[in-house]
Amino acid sequence: MNGIGKKIFFLLMALPMMINAMAQEQKKPTLEDLLPGGETYRYAENLYGLQWWGDECIKPGIDTIYAIHPKTGKEKMLVTREQINQALAGKQLKKVSQLYGVQFLWPDKPQLLLTQPGKYIIYDFEANQITDVLEVKQEAANQDFCTASGKVAYTIGNNLYVDNQQVTNEPEGIVCGQIVHRNEFGINKGTFWSPKGNLLAFYRMDESMVTQYPLVDITARVGEVNNVRYPMAGMTSHQVKVGIYNPATGKTIYLNAGDPTDRYFTNISWSPDEKSLYLIELNRDQNHSKLCQYDATTGELVKTLVEEKHPKYVEPQNPITFLPWDETKFIYQSQRDGYNHLYLYDTDGKLLKQLTKGNWLVQNVLGFNAKKKEIVFTAIEGLKSGHFTVNVNSGKMNRPFDSCSESAHSGKLSASGSYLIDSYSTKTEARNIEIADTKNFKTISMLKAKDPYEGFVMPSFETGTIKAADGTTDLYYRITKPADFDPNKKYPVIVYVYGGPHAQCVTGGFQNGARGWDIYMAGKGYIMFTMDNRGSSNRGLEFENVTFRHLGVEEGKDQVKGIEFLKTLPYVDANRIGVHGWSFGGHMTTALMLRYPEIFKVGVAGGPVIDWAFYEVMYGERYMDTPQSNPEGYKECNLRNLAGQLKGHLLIIHDDHDNTCVPQHTLSFMKACIDARTYPDMFIYPCHEHNVMGRDRIHLHEKITRYFEDYL
Amino acid sequence: MNGIGKKIFFLLMALPMMINAMAQEQKKPTLEDLLPGGETYRYAENLYGLQWWGDECIKPGIDTIYAIHPKTGKEKMLVTREQINQALAGKQLKKVSQLYGVQFLWPDKPQLLLTQPGKYIIYDFEANQITDVLEVKQEAANQDFCTASGKVAYTIGNNLYVDNQQVTNEPEGIVCGQIVHRNEFGINKGTFWSPKGNLLAFYRMDESMVTQYPLVDITARVGEVNNVRYPMAGMTSHQVKVGIYNPATGKTIYLNAGDPTDRYFTNISWSPDEKSLYLIELNRDQNHSKLCQYDATTGELVKTLVEEKHPKYVEPQNPITFLPWDETKFIYQSQRDGYNHLYLYDTDGKLLKQLTKGNWLVQNVLGFNAKKKEIVFTAIEGLKSGHFTVNVNSGKMNRPFDSCSESAHSGKLSASGSYLIDSYSTKTEARNIEIADTKNFKTISMLKAKDPYEGFVMPSFETGTIKAADGTTDLYYRITKPADFDPNKKYPVIVYVYGGPHAQCVTGGFQNGARGWDIYMAGKGYIMFTMDNRGSSNRGLEFENVTFRHLGVEEGKDQVKGIEFLKTLPYVDANRIGVHGWSFGGHMTTALMLRYPEIFKVGVAGGPVIDWAFYEVMYGERYMDTPQSNPEGYKECNLRNLAGQLKGHLLIIHDDHDNTCVPQHTLSFMKACIDARTYPDMFIYPCHEHNVMGRDRIHLHEKITRYFEDYL
Repeated sequence: MNGIGKKIFFLLMALPMMINAMAQEQKKPTLEDLLPGGETYRYAENLYGLQWWGDECIKPGIDTIYAIHPKTGKEKMLVTREQINQALAGKQLKKVSQLYGVQFLWPDKPQLLLTQPGKYIIYDFEANQITDVLEVKQEAANQDFCTASGKVAYTIGNNLYVDNQQVTNEPEGIVCGQIVHRNEFGINKGTFWSPKGNLLAFYRMDESMVTQYPLVDITARVGEVNNVRYPMAGMTSHQVKVGIYNPATGKTIYLNAGDPTDRYFTNISWSPDEKSLYLIELNRDQNHSKLCQYDATTGELVKTLVEEKHPKYVEPQNPITFLPWDETKFIYQSQRDGYNHLYLYDTDGKLLKQLTKGNWLVQNVLGFNAKKKEIVFTAIEGLKSGHFTVNVNSGKMNRPFDSCSESAHSGKLSASGSYLIDSYSTKTEARNIEIADTKNFKTISMLKAKDPYEGFVMPSFETGTIKAADGTTDLYYRITKPADFDPNKKYPVIVYVYGGPHAQCVTGGFQNGARGWDIYMAGKGYIMFTMDNRGSSNRGLEFENVTFRHLGVEEGKDQVKGIEFLKTLPYVDANRIGVHGWSFGGHMTTALMLRYPEIFKVGVAGGPVIDWAFYEVMYGERYMDTPQSNPEGYKECNLRNLAGQLKGHLLIIHDDHDNTCVPQHTLSFMKACIDARTYPDMFIYPCHEHNVMGRDRIHLHEKITRYFEDYL
Repeated sequence: MNGIGKKIFFLLMALPMMINAMAQEQKKPTLEDLLPGGETYRYAENLYGLQWWGDECIKPGIDTIYAIHPKTGKEKMLVTREQINQALAGKQLKKVSQLYGVQFLWPDKPQLLLTQPGKYIIYDFEANQITDVLEVKQEAANQDFCTASGKVAYTIGNNLYVDNQQVTNEPEGIVCGQIVHRNEFGINKGTFWSPKGNLLAFYRMDESMVTQYPLVDITARVGEVNNVRYPMAGMTSHQVKVGIYNPATGKTIYLNAGDPTDRYFTNISWSPDEKSLYLIELNRDQNHSKLCQYDATTGELVKTLVEEKHPKYVEPQNPITFLPWDETKFIYQSQRDGYNHLYLYDTDGKLLKQLTKGNWLVQNVLGFNAKKKEIVFTAIEGLKSGHFTVNVNSGKMNRPFDSCSESAHSGKLSASGSYLIDSYSTKTEARNIEIADTKNFKTISMLKAKDPYEGFVMPSFETGTIKAADGTTDLYYRITKPADFDPNKKYPVIVYVYGGPHAQCVTGGFQNGARGWDIYMAGKGYIMFTMDNRGSSNRGLEFENVTFRHLGVEEGKDQVKGIEFLKTLPYVDANRIGVHGWSFGGHMTTALMLRYPEIFKVGVAGGPVIDWAFYEVMYGERYMDTPQSNPEGYKECNLRNLAGQLKGHLLIIHDDHDNTCVPQHTLSFMKACIDARTYPDMFIYPCHEHNVMGRDRIHLHEKITRYFEDYL
């Protein structure tokens, strides 16, 4: 071997060490890197404020707003911040520091809306001038700007205002213009402008008869009670009415819907001509829905168009949508065939046709392409999702659902429906933003976000399916393995679980939906495991409603199947299995620790439901019925009754201002354990609601981590 | 060695093993054996209901009542339960199942008082008949039976009643006939019968202006607030008046004491002729007391007899007591010379003489021997205590204080003062009960309780003194060592600490005051250490008031002296030192963990004061003044300000109904630690007040034990 050969030889010998040294230079992400609220949280790159102005794509920035041609991708500068600030200064208005919040609401006008506290400012970017300034009171909440009329509805305290005129004048205990029925049934606001802006429908909720739950604010000089009206399962609930306010006359009528006791008024929508208001009404049992049409002038019921019943529950979550090209027809969404699909009805209530069909579900209707008579929507099943069109006349979809890939999509449709902003992620891609032509779904790339964890030592993510406890249903799981995973080692496992309805933890999106804490713990040498048991979402009706009247039981059996699977893996240390979850996942965590004490050694439950009788009426009774009508179910699922079975280490964390799952759950469980002489641990996060958000989220996860490190 | 020799040899060889085997047959006491509330708690034998009837000692039992001659010890049966029950049955009254609760209130009559719910029954045991039955309402609370008149004062809700007549009629927020000033200043009741029973003095407390602290009852169907009027340091406090009710006229007058704002009315006593009521009044600063005489008929102030001032605080805790043989003279107790002693005054307010003196203190005046003009009292200093007499005329004590031994005494004096029931314990004796002749303190033994832990493996107890942080003051400590203590081993140490005023943890009594948990932990191989730092009781005024305006600081310095001493012991593992305490001891525990993180590895604090600004007015301001007048002190002692210094494992336990030290202390500390990114643990015992009593006390101590086992 000559000299050079020797050098090369030694260089080659040293290579693994060098690579190793390089790898060691890469650092593991910290909780601050991984969790929202962390000082160095690594958001995936994004294009904030991306939107449509007609069929032109608007891309705002700090200093500029560009319009992008959806076919060519060519950018054209519309306006600069300097121009806008000059115009603002000319009207003695506050300057803006960035342009991400602008709204292009009028496809046919060169105008944008700027919002500042208490102000709606309309700016004409062709004339370069402020054309209108609308002021509302600083304390205004729940602001709802009407694009058609320029009016603003909002609330102050418990009353409704429109354009600074007080619409309602109700005492404490009656709330107007706000969310009702505790955000269930797809309700996410309390005011509904008619299409032309002439009328405003709004909710009025009388909750004066609802018992108050006392949450104590310990930051006051002397602890103070913050009461929250919280109707618990089986107890007296609030009563809702729907009002219609006419700004022109200043008059309000209320729909004559009859006695509101034990009824839900959901999914409000207007007819295009503003003459009718449509609601989906539900009985308290939530097993019978009615699509009802009311006369918007008189408030009288015109007719009931569609009724649905189910022995378990029906769950309408989407208002009807009228075809833009035919005001006599509308789209109605239903799970009646087992998956959420689109149905075409006419205004006589006649079913014209089922528009979509298949073992997948419509996730979101994005809008219409009027010219081509198409509906554009997002569809999903399990890990697969994508955007689709369906032709209303032919019922044909642009492509079969199965053609879409594992991914997670959201979309915004252009005014004509010809173009779509498609924002999606895949297992390996944090965010892609593309403009898609809805004719052929050809795309122009707007953003390929770089990996936010580039340069960090990252775990690997694997997904797969196992059979549920019923022996037939496929369940998706995700395994997160340490970066330096060695198949010959034995690893402790932590199951992160949610398990409740309306949620999916294993997705086709970035890192298969793994959470920052999963990554952190994998970095510490844990195998992280998550599986979406039956009862979770995006798998169809029967998958979800198998849990009816005994929440947590079937879900737990499925999770045990996950554990059985884990135990078949040679690298899993079956003696070191932990579990963590929050809310429904807190219930699952506690239930798993109690029902399967031989499996789970350590658990950390956050804000758990312990007794469904302490949970609220709308969600609780949908799945559990009432304590009066389902006493066995409430007994079986009341974890206090299992308190004596606790063997492992269980830490329960609750927030002192948890107004979703009140602290009584955890405190009463502690009492049950004390009575039964078992030894859970507990912790309280003061001044937080139904989870720990913001900066304290880092502390929370460090706390959770330490518990597993101490005991698992 | 012949055959027998061999056998003996092997027998001798085996002896240690046999002894060891015998020792192993003895068991260690469990928490159930050691703690009150435990199912097998080992109470020391006692003679329940022992009392005087004139100069005869009454010994009740289940079936019989004996009278014992105090000189000879001869027993004479007075009456049987059967006889009493026959008499009760004759009057259609409920039978009694034991006789421990009888009261011999009338030295000159063969009568005893039986109490049953809602009933006072007077039974003549010579005539064998019920002579009187007095009924009060079942809901009556704070019952006060007048021996002289046979009348009963009591409260229902917030109002006062006498013999079923309503005396006061006040709205919620004004409380009559109950304890005021939160039990401070020696106040333990709210009604005060005059000596002949003709008048009733009572407290009236207006607390309507006091902020309410909300305690949440989670056992209600929906959590409910139980408000407690809790005036916090520096805030508006309640206002107290003293009323005098005359049952003969049905009229009530209130003392004309002027504006009650920020004043304390304490230590109520009657003149023997019932014409005057004496009070000791204090300003809110608690540094100026006045003994005031009021005319019981008019309510007007007659005069101020004695005034005391101190730059720190004065703390009158004992009402004046008139000499039975001279109604113009009374005994007044004061710490003015540095120790609580007896002073003789006349009713003109003239100091006649100091009756007792020395570096020890009068703990309890038991009464008088009128014939011999003697006062009989209990005295204490540190571990020594005993009963004494002092002659009022000569000022001579029957023996010097130093002649008494390490022990803990309580006593009951006979009617004439000639005899004393002396109940006491020593380090090795759980309870001795003797009848002592106060002439020469010759005794007749009534009970020598057997060791309640006979047959158990028990630790050893050692006491001694070390120097306080001031370099001069002696502090008493107690070390509890495991039964199998081996001086060549290294042991972890847990300090049990209280450290606050009015308490003494190391005593001359049984096991030197060691707690059941000390014994339990010693059984698990821990060295248990307790030391009474400066600030604790029974060592004199300066010892106690050195902590003024910065509670916890000097106390902590002394505790560190204890640790320095421990570190000199070869068998102490200085790397494994823990600390536990409740209430003031919870403050001390938390403070020691934060101020001396390099010393204390693990702490468990129960119901701690975290911020004296959250503590109540009477106790808090005595030692800390107000937050307004002592901002530096409140800042220095507010443990939230030290939250960032937490290094070890600190578990804080709080009761959700803690109305002495409200949950805000612990919850606000958790918030401070979260803000500072430190990691305490916490636990809540629902449905308990300022400690965990009853059956759950076992759970509590198992919980505490596990924490030390996990982390120390």
